[in-house]
Amino acid sequence: MFKKLDEIKVLRDPIHGYIHVEYDVIWKCINSREFQRLRRIKQLGASYMVYHTAEHSRFAHSLGVYEIVRRMIVENNDIGSTISEKDAIAVMLAGLLHDIGHGPFSHAFESICQTHHEEFTERIILEDTEVHRIIEKTQAGLSKSVASIINHTHKNGLLTQMISGQLDADRMDYLLRDAYFTGTKYGEFDLERVLRTIRVRDGIMVVKETGIHTIEDYIMARYHMYWQVYYHPTARSYEIILSKLFERLRDCEKENSKVLKEVTMFNAFIRNKDISVNDHYLMDETTCFYGFSLLLESKDEILKDLSYRLLTRNLFKYVDITNDKMKETKKNQLIKKGYDIRYYFHVDKVEQRPYQPYKGDDLSAIWIVMNNGSIKELSEASDIVHSLVHGENKNEEKMFYPVG
Amino acid sequence: MFKKLDEIKVLRDPIHGYIHVEYDVIWKCINSREFQRLRRIKQLGASYMVYHTAEHSRFAHSLGVYEIVRRMIVENNDIGSTISEKDAIAVMLAGLLHDIGHGPFSHAFESICQTHHEEFTERIILEDTEVHRIIEKTQAGLSKSVASIINHTHKNGLLTQMISGQLDADRMDYLLRDAYFTGTKYGEFDLERVLRTIRVRDGIMVVKETGIHTIEDYIMARYHMYWQVYYHPTARSYEIILSKLFERLRDCEKENSKVLKEVTMFNAFIRNKDISVNDHYLMDETTCFYGFSLLLESKDEILKDLSYRLLTRNLFKYVDITNDKMKETKKNQLIKKGYDIRYYFHVDKVEQRPYQPYKGDDLSAIWIVMNNGSIKELSEASDIVHSLVHGENKNEEKMFYPVG
Amino acid sequence: MFKKLDEIKVLRDPIHGYIHVEYDVIWKCINSREFQRLRRIKQLGASYMVYHTAEHSRFAHSLGVYEIVRRMIVENNDIGSTISEKDAIAVMLAGLLHDIGHGPFSHAFESICQTHHEEFTERIILEDTEVHRIIEKTQAGLSKSVASIINHTHKNGLLTQMISGQLDADRMDYLLRDAYFTGTKYGEFDLERVLRTIRVRDGIMVVKETGIHTIEDYIMARYHMYWQVYYHPTARSYEIILSKLFERLRDCEKENSKVLKEVTMFNAFIRNKDISVNDHYLMDETTCFYGFSLLLESKDEILKDLSYRLLTRNLFKYVDITNDKMKETKKNQLIKKGYDIRYYFHVDKVEQRPYQPYKGDDLSAIWIVMNNGSIKELSEASDIVHSLVHGENKNEEKMFYPVG
Amino acid sequence: MFKKLDEIKVLRDPIHGYIHVEYDVIWKCINSREFQRLRRIKQLGASYMVYHTAEHSRFAHSLGVYEIVRRMIVENNDIGSTISEKDAIAVMLAGLLHDIGHGPFSHAFESICQTHHEEFTERIILEDTEVHRIIEKTQAGLSKSVASIINHTHKNGLLTQMISGQLDADRMDYLLRDAYFTGTKYGEFDLERVLRTIRVRDGIMVVKETGIHTIEDYIMARYHMYWQVYYHPTARSYEIILSKLFERLRDCEKENSKVLKEVTMFNAFIRNKDISVNDHYLMDETTCFYGFSLLLESKDEILKDLSYRLLTRNLFKYVDITNDKMKETKKNQLIKKGYDIRYYFHVDKVEQRPYQPYKGDDLSAIWIVMNNGSIKELSEASDIVHSLVHGENKNEEKMFYPVG
Repeated sequence: MFKKLDEIKVLRDPIHGYIHVEYDVIWKCINSREFQRLRRIKQLGASYMVYHTAEHSRFAHSLGVYEIVRRMIVENNDIGSTISEKDAIAVMLAGLLHDIGHGPFSHAFESICQTHHEEFTERIILEDTEVHRIIEKTQAGLSKSVASIINHTHKNGLLTQMISGQLDADRMDYLLRDAYFTGTKYGEFDLERVLRTIRVRDGIMVVKETGIHTIEDYIMARYHMYWQVYYHPTARSYEIILSKLFERLRDCEKENSKVLKEVTMFNAFIRNKDISVNDHYLMDETTCFYGFSLLLESKDEILKDLSYRLLTRNLFKYVDITNDKMKETKKNQLIKKGYDIRYYFHVDKVEQRPYQPYKGDDLSAIWIVMNNGSIKELSEASDIVHSLVHGENKNEEKMFYPVG
Repeated sequence: MFKKLDEIKVLRDPIHGYIHVEYDVIWKCINSREFQRLRRIKQLGASYMVYHTAEHSRFAHSLGVYEIVRRMIVENNDIGSTISEKDAIAVMLAGLLHDIGHGPFSHAFESICQTHHEEFTERIILEDTEVHRIIEKTQAGLSKSVASIINHTHKNGLLTQMISGQLDADRMDYLLRDAYFTGTKYGEFDLERVLRTIRVRDGIMVVKETGIHTIEDYIMARYHMYWQVYYHPTARSYEIILSKLFERLRDCEKENSKVLKEVTMFNAFIRNKDISVNDHYLMDETTCFYGFSLLLESKDEILKDLSYRLLTRNLFKYVDITNDKMKETKKNQLIKKGYDIRYYFHVDKVEQRPYQPYKGDDLSAIWIVMNNGSIKELSEASDIVHSLVHGENKNEEKMFYPVG
Repeated sequence: MFKKLDEIKVLRDPIHGYIHVEYDVIWKCINSREFQRLRRIKQLGASYMVYHTAEHSRFAHSLGVYEIVRRMIVENNDIGSTISEKDAIAVMLAGLLHDIGHGPFSHAFESICQTHHEEFTERIILEDTEVHRIIEKTQAGLSKSVASIINHTHKNGLLTQMISGQLDADRMDYLLRDAYFTGTKYGEFDLERVLRTIRVRDGIMVVKETGIHTIEDYIMARYHMYWQVYYHPTARSYEIILSKLFERLRDCEKENSKVLKEVTMFNAFIRNKDISVNDHYLMDETTCFYGFSLLLESKDEILKDLSYRLLTRNLFKYVDITNDKMKETKKNQLIKKGYDIRYYFHVDKVEQRPYQPYKGDDLSAIWIVMNNGSIKELSEASDIVHSLVHGENKNEEKMFYPVG
Repeated sequence: MFKKLDEIKVLRDPIHGYIHVEYDVIWKCINSREFQRLRRIKQLGASYMVYHTAEHSRFAHSLGVYEIVRRMIVENNDIGSTISEKDAIAVMLAGLLHDIGHGPFSHAFESICQTHHEEFTERIILEDTEVHRIIEKTQAGLSKSVASIINHTHKNGLLTQMISGQLDADRMDYLLRDAYFTGTKYGEFDLERVLRTIRVRDGIMVVKETGIHTIEDYIMARYHMYWQVYYHPTARSYEIILSKLFERLRDCEKENSKVLKEVTMFNAFIRNKDISVNDHYLMDETTCFYGFSLLLESKDEILKDLSYRLLTRNLFKYVDITNDKMKETKKNQLIKKGYDIRYYFHVDKVEQRPYQPYKGDDLSAIWIVMNNGSIKELSEASDIVHSLVHGENKNEEKMFYPVG
């Protein structure tokens, strides 16, 4: 029914061997301007300041998510036989496009501009964009179906689980990909075996009991990647400076400074009103870096300093906070040295559980189908996950500030 | 003599395990603004249009070259015992900084702007830059020594061989790195064994006869990487469009068009007079991409179209030229369709020899020290390299033009 | 002092790149008849009945342990500067020879013959063997030093920790090696980083706090390898049949059967009196398999059947025991079918903790030196190991018996 | 038609990820006694004397060949749509069983005993063996079909090409497998891409022009593996001693010595008359090693010495022969020292072409289907293979003899 390419296209990929594209609509979406824009946004934001080879983009990751979704359908009989061709197309598109709304440096940017990538993902799929027109031309109404899988409103929960549960194509790809591109081994797990042990029971994705060790290994891979890569304090230091720079831009704008004329590319987002999908299209990391280069000559000393820090990796130092007094002492020191502590002091707390058990939402937990046919939530089926969930949480509080 | 860091710094790297930094001057150069700029220039230019994961930067490659040079000195007794600490520092810096003058998209950009990265590399090391000041502060005159190794005028030819011969740290790193990040296996060879079989004879780097198969494998790795990656026609198509866009900008400038006001970041290079090291600093790939984004709204239709093609990967088609008539026929077709063939037609010829034997320059050939102590040039010591050198050359001529 | 080889010997190894041999005594021990015998004993006993490529020998593993010990000394300053050259040689030899007393199929064989490989390891090092003579010729008394490191009586506890603690060269090599040769990824961890974060405090090996995630990953690697490989029930089924076959041989011998004349190679061990180091030398897995081939024609039906099962992988079936009645029921069925349940029924219970915290012995725990200089036992320094240690133990009870 | 297993069986394999078994007859053949015997014969004979981890068996390799054949059929449309289910089963069995007739140490053993593994492969498939009965029970006459594919008499040449041409499943598996288990990288090539670019034209397997670089890389992989691994002189030295030992046994037998009573396991082969498939079954490498252990106590001094050499890796030295006089000089020296040069001197010449172009047999050459549809033999389509074929051949002549 859905148009296929004359010959399957394959894209070489170090994680999956090849990405396979069979359907015309997938190929066209890959070549749309909105999807190609993802080449200009790094998957791991500031992590390449720590792991210098973590320069891979959301473009590559999105292809990887698509490929895992495709393999779930083609290689796993339970899934393949459960869903229609239309749903298969929709969930492959959802995997491909789930990150299309991301802005530069993800969270640092969002927090200041008070936008959410989820919102833009939905808008790009549903508003008048290249990618929207491609999908609708393939089948009227299909874009709504894709968007509803991404925003968890599709009536078939299995499709949502495939791209955003606790064992979804998104996480599976990014763990493997981030491990490969950082050069760490912590994120590795046995994707082949996960794909082989997935089953569908009552319309819900579950894992066979024989695959439980592989799932434990996957949970541990996540745990380690969080601490070794995603929460690395040096990357957080970079992101904090990014946030502070955008915060300063916004404050300048409120104070009616002329500074924003120096870097007009930030206008729409700093003012944050009526941001169009085209404004969003133009805001990527190359745009930001050109803006930072211009700010090297800014008349505002704070913007000048913060942009210099970003461009030369002259980052804030960090220390663990072991008592509350430390914060006040440090702030006072910084004030004495003339620093504006709105932009030159930051406290950051992170906490991470490697796995969140069942909380009223069937889709987000990982379910195990035991050899006897009964179904258990992962932390009840696995001693080791049980230990993790009921043990103390690992968390850290650090403060960040300039040296000297 | 030369200041060392309190603790060796290590940077995780997928190719080398870790990059090890022991000397203060190396660490400071890595954190200089000119070296950090290399994060914004991709190692393989347009190849990520073919191999979507080839997004690695010249920053990562330069660290890798430094690391191989460091290992040559530390792990290879013949080299380590031949050179002084000063020469060791100089050649490690030369390895680190050999690409510091590169502009965006390397050759596409250079050909139009008539600049050469070698010239800028030398200027950045010798003129008043951060990196220059760091090196001179370490030891007066050291920057000249570093530059002379890079431009082949240093009196100790061994140092030059280490970073730019036919078996140098530069090629060794990029073959392995490009193989890893493209996900192909063609570039792999046995670096460990090459490092183990290098010897120094009469001040020249040679390889032990027992290592000859490893060198053959390295030569073949180069051969395959050229055809599979470096000369891939899709990447060439992208580079051709880049060249045409810069060519059009230059032509517009000559015709006094106001177009250049739309994209002021290109001014210095398009006008190509008195380009300062600061102009060079600001010209990287993020700057270019922001410029291309602006050109999406250009009043010049050709610039508008070419920038759109670059941003959406809407590339020129290519075919092999098997007779001269093909070119004229195609040009006429394009003219009839209204294309300006200055910008919409290109013929590209590539030829590659996997290895160039001795041509009067001792430094560029690969030398083998035979078990009996005599020294032979590689193509005389290896049957297979002999076959390659004396066989027919592989070459291709293709024409590139828009579809439709 | 200790004689070195004219040129360092290197042996290619997939786990370590190369095994490096610098000292004459190491090289000679590798080429001794007792060490070469380890080529004929598989590292993982019966695991290749599950993972068909797990065919690697104790020879390769022993070289790997030696290499890790060597790297600990050469690459880790704290260790290298703590121990003398003599102790360095002794501990490298201890690493190399720690498994030299192993018999075929390790535990299956030992349990029946009531021998212990530790005893034979000591005897081979101390009695009149090739390996003993090589060591004593190098330095009189050195063999005692080597043996004392292995049997935990050496006065320098650090040396013992290096080859048999909870973070020793033995486990580090076998996890990586077994992962590689089975083709699973569970055993992988970051050896480079472990070696970099080891320190010596008060003569005891500790790990820097910054390396704690790597150690957690190592503990998890062990946990997963136990369940996925070492305790795999199919391999246990094979080992159970091995045990039963040797048990039957011993029972035949007691009953004065002539069966033992069919397979004279087993005499010394089955009778288990005055086993010489030469008897031990001759008893390896090739000897056993020839014995099993002969038993295919045995007059004893049980030996004939069991050896046929071993040679054709016709194994016992297994089921989880969920209540005690199951055992009696199954036994009665087997008896009814004519099986002698001494040899055709077996209950096997396994339990595993991924890490055993401190129990009065400083050498066996893993110690972490915190950033503030204090020292904590691993399960107190790591939330995740704490969870594991205080969570429920994973254990299994299975029964094994023939089908049909 | 052909019976399938209830659930696909998968065997973990480091080269292929998993070996997939879907058909009952395949699974049963894997578990037959003749196939299980291949676990006791090493894939690379004596190479583990050089590369100590090259301990993998013909069992693992045979599974790998089967898996590649299976993938050719399932994943390659051209092949899959060309052959019937019966032919598919037959060729998968042919891949699985092609090495089943191998004896210990392959060529060393064959040359003395004047047997050929091809002959035994055929006999085991066609005579009354377990494997034969399994196949015939599945479909009468099927065993003849399997044997005819292996011995090149099957009427469908494509089937033979799949398991024994110049681009067959056999070589593809062993190059990758031997590279993995030796730890060298020389044997690696891009199997995925080879499988994707194979086509069938006029019933013959060809490769698409776009895959030509991959094929060149495969040819080079073979070339390097030959010199680095397969023809390594240390392994040849071991094999030469093996040959000399068997030669001595045969000579003893002719001279009516009682020596053969010491090692009765060799009787059938040394006498070489009426060797049954059961004699063949019992003759594997474990049997040989037990025999060598017994010969350590032989009354024949030469057998005693040669077996000691094999068991302790006390090998013959080798030197390149650069003139004929060398041989005579060395022989005279050896005779003077009391050596019997029938067993203590050997000259060995090897020559290798990486690829043999067309020689009248369509099945053995590699064919390329050009973009324009024409078909060329590889050495005409590839410049580099052309160079190799028409360049000088690499060859070596060495003599082997004991030291001291």
